[in-house]
Amino acid sequence: MTANFESAELALKFWRLLYQTYTLRKQSEDQIFEEHGLTTEQFGVLVTIGFFGSPVKPTEIAKWLARSPNSISMIVDRMVKAGLVRRVRSTGDRREVRVFITSKAENALKPATLASLEFIRKILSPLSNEDRRTLISLLGTLKSEILKYLNPEVDIEETTRNESERQGNMREWLLKYTLPSTPQAKRQGGKKRKTKKKTE
Amino acid sequence: MTANFESAELALKFWRLLYQTYTLRKQSEDQIFEEHGLTTEQFGVLVTIGFFGSPVKPTEIAKWLARSPNSISMIVDRMVKAGLVRRVRSTGDRREVRVFITSKAENALKPATLASLEFIRKILSPLSNEDRRTLISLLGTLKSEILKYLNPEVDIEETTRNESERQGNMREWLLKYTLPSTPQAKRQGGKKRKTKKKTE
Repeated sequence: MTANFESAELALKFWRLLYQTYTLRKQSEDQIFEEHGLTTEQFGVLVTIGFFGSPVKPTEIAKWLARSPNSISMIVDRMVKAGLVRRVRSTGDRREVRVFITSKAENALKPATLASLEFIRKILSPLSNEDRRTLISLLGTLKSEILKYLNPEVDIEETTRNESERQGNMREWLLKYTLPSTPQAKRQGGKKRKTKKKTE
Repeated sequence: MTANFESAELALKFWRLLYQTYTLRKQSEDQIFEEHGLTTEQFGVLVTIGFFGSPVKPTEIAKWLARSPNSISMIVDRMVKAGLVRRVRSTGDRREVRVFITSKAENALKPATLASLEFIRKILSPLSNEDRRTLISLLGTLKSEILKYLNPEVDIEETTRNESERQGNMREWLLKYTLPSTPQAKRQGGKKRKTKKKTE
């Protein structure tokens, strides 16, 4: 019973800390993103499109952000109105919709990403790189367990593989949005970045 | 630059995992609490009142749950309508309101707590007790950093002291809501638990 009680106490402490860390982090980020004309949810959608490296189906955004397709659809609606994304129907299958990022969102994304990364780095600063890796590994284990709880038939290996495939995109995205100047920008003399429009 | 990039990549991975772990956990708990006629937010408010061990000021609930007083006020409004809590004005200072838990909420709380603890234990099950303590300690460090970010003047030591003071209440609360039968119930022959009404 004592061991049982101790484990219940640890579980509750963990629950409370996960809740507090997430909620306080959300409060901080709401402030940060508001300064850049975005909500935290909008930033999440934009980053997801960035990770995928190409126009994304709303269902994929929902899956990636672990939200319901319905709530993502509402967020995307508001983002279309705010001029941050466009919905485009596939020429092949007219029922298929993909979400594009606009140049207005592109312009907001770089400073917002830098500010957000600065914040995450700041809160991670007391932890050594080894501690950070430990934290990531422990949270990763929990995530797999929760996925299994929500869907006992989930293929964790496949989920992990899919995430790893996005890893390359994440690197590219990071290079694009966080480094002072990208290799491409350097080749162009670093001057054309502000007026450069992406052609798809 | 490479070390910088690596730290940005770690920061982003952490951000993503914290988000996913919290969101997936929330999805799971929404399901669990719905089965017990509660929302996850309502459970949070009830647990807070339980932790304090006595009627609580709404501002204290907001602080404890790291939510705005406004959002707690709205949640409490709905809970009053649902018969889960009562608002009572202090006889001394009429402006001071405290929130009481009703017997209806008491009855829902025990099975909801047990189901929620079972879930947390399940997702923590692959981690050793040492890993759990590491996770709690790392999240605790992050929490302090985020608190400092949100309010550079915050007294972390005082915050920690306040939390420790609640630790005793948390133990009592856990004993009351999670053990098969409490010492008191045992003295009563463990038969009166269902009909027992708390008198305040």
